[in-house]
Amino acid sequence: MRVVTSISEMRKVVEEQRSYGKIVGLVPTMGFFHQGHISLMHAAREECDYVVVSLFVNPTQFAPGEDLEDYPRDLSRDVEMATEAGVDCIFHPPAEDMYMQPYLTYVMVEEITDRLCGASRPGHFRGVATVVAKLFNIIPAHRAYFGLKDAQQVQVIRRMARDLDFDIEVVACPTVRESDGLAMSSRNVYLEPEERKAATVLHRSLQLARKLVAEGERDPEKVTGDMHALIVRESLVEPEYVAAVDWDLLTPLDRLEGWVLFALAARVGKARLIDNALIEVKD
Amino acid sequence: MRVVTSISEMRKVVEEQRSYGKIVGLVPTMGFFHQGHISLMHAAREECDYVVVSLFVNPTQFAPGEDLEDYPRDLSRDVEMATEAGVDCIFHPPAEDMYMQPYLTYVMVEEITDRLCGASRPGHFRGVATVVAKLFNIIPAHRAYFGLKDAQQVQVIRRMARDLDFDIEVVACPTVRESDGLAMSSRNVYLEPEERKAATVLHRSLQLARKLVAEGERDPEKVTGDMHALIVRESLVEPEYVAAVDWDLLTPLDRLEGWVLFALAARVGKARLIDNALIEVKD
Repeated sequence: MRVVTSISEMRKVVEEQRSYGKIVGLVPTMGFFHQGHISLMHAAREECDYVVVSLFVNPTQFAPGEDLEDYPRDLSRDVEMATEAGVDCIFHPPAEDMYMQPYLTYVMVEEITDRLCGASRPGHFRGVATVVAKLFNIIPAHRAYFGLKDAQQVQVIRRMARDLDFDIEVVACPTVRESDGLAMSSRNVYLEPEERKAATVLHRSLQLARKLVAEGERDPEKVTGDMHALIVRESLVEPEYVAAVDWDLLTPLDRLEGWVLFALAARVGKARLIDNALIEVKD
Repeated sequence: MRVVTSISEMRKVVEEQRSYGKIVGLVPTMGFFHQGHISLMHAAREECDYVVVSLFVNPTQFAPGEDLEDYPRDLSRDVEMATEAGVDCIFHPPAEDMYMQPYLTYVMVEEITDRLCGASRPGHFRGVATVVAKLFNIIPAHRAYFGLKDAQQVQVIRRMARDLDFDIEVVACPTVRESDGLAMSSRNVYLEPEERKAATVLHRSLQLARKLVAEGERDPEKVTGDMHALIVRESLVEPEYVAAVDWDLLTPLDRLEGWVLFALAARVGKARLIDNALIEVKD
């Protein structure tokens, strides 16, 4: 497996593969791989001829005071895991090349970035949309793979790709969970043992939503209220939001119908964790 | 010459040309061609194997109350002129395909869009950067040609292309003028005969700047003050701004040195006209 740090070399690698008629897959990541990342690499490996994983802890998607400095990193372990997963190339550029100063250009997706995580993380999705637009230009892949754990991010990137006419198919892959249901996240390393145990309530609250919907509940506030009540029973878990929104535009719902995203964020110790369930509500 | 209105067909045409190893040139325009546009087509024709001219009156770069509805249009004449200039393909998409509703994504270039025309045309450069990013994705050319008459636009697009890693060389071509010095513009058709005559003062004020700099004047306010005084002697011309700025970031200067952009905008009757001179000030 090849590790490329230069933007111009990365371009050449992809251009060469495309000139051979190869289908190129891109998996954008911030590294510190877990099975969630590996599942994206496997999906890309299955569907593409040449798989590039970008590994870049993107400073513009962290708000001041967030965990940019502390974000876990382990390049040599990541290289091993990506090799094992059959990845062809890791793109690992220095931040000063990605954001050559003065850096002035940002991609903004309106409306769907104001809600859910966007409400408490100002500039976060601006940073995400910007770095993904850059990656799409540096690595003009046929397909790009993202995890549904970051459901809002998936919708922001899909919208951005469609609106700006990127010729890249955005593929969303299912959330990968620990055996007790906790969604895999690089930030789970922040959890102390007691917090780690308490954090499973997030997944349990989503299972509760699924159960209530299956039983016929169609009032979003009833479901999110019950989820919230379940979560706060864990004193180590402090919910930031618990919401039921329309899957397309992430707008609040009066009634549960169609594809509904149940999404939540919570503080557990030092970690801010998110999780969600995408549920088709049929009448 | 081919006229393409479908985004997916346009993509295919360029992809095919690139697969043959052809160098593709793009000339983005809003149509109603004059010799300024033709000079861009000639430059592209000279340097590229396949020349695409996009012709799209982009609604997102007009602020409310501006001349979107009145903007002059003449497709059949444009097609004739482009054919004559040796263009291979005109891309003329419907607005509803370029901005499929709900449309939510915009490209913002900070700082350099706040000044000069950006100060009086809120959202204008956001619209420009957005549509050019879209065109760069639909028509992945090797080179894109823009006129220096819109000097701020050239710098916004250069910055956007560099910051977002578009693999397209932005080529700036000199302003083309009428025999009496008036910069060619599709908006010149708005001028009544007396206004048309008065409007030459804009070019004359830039010649004055060039003369003052050649004589050793290094105070930006002295030069722009004299330009302003010359312009207001024409009662039909109402200057909006007259500025001397650094060419790279369009920041105001304390002293004239290096590459300086003298730029102005003025109302002449129904028209808002702009013009500029890029002058290297050597000591």
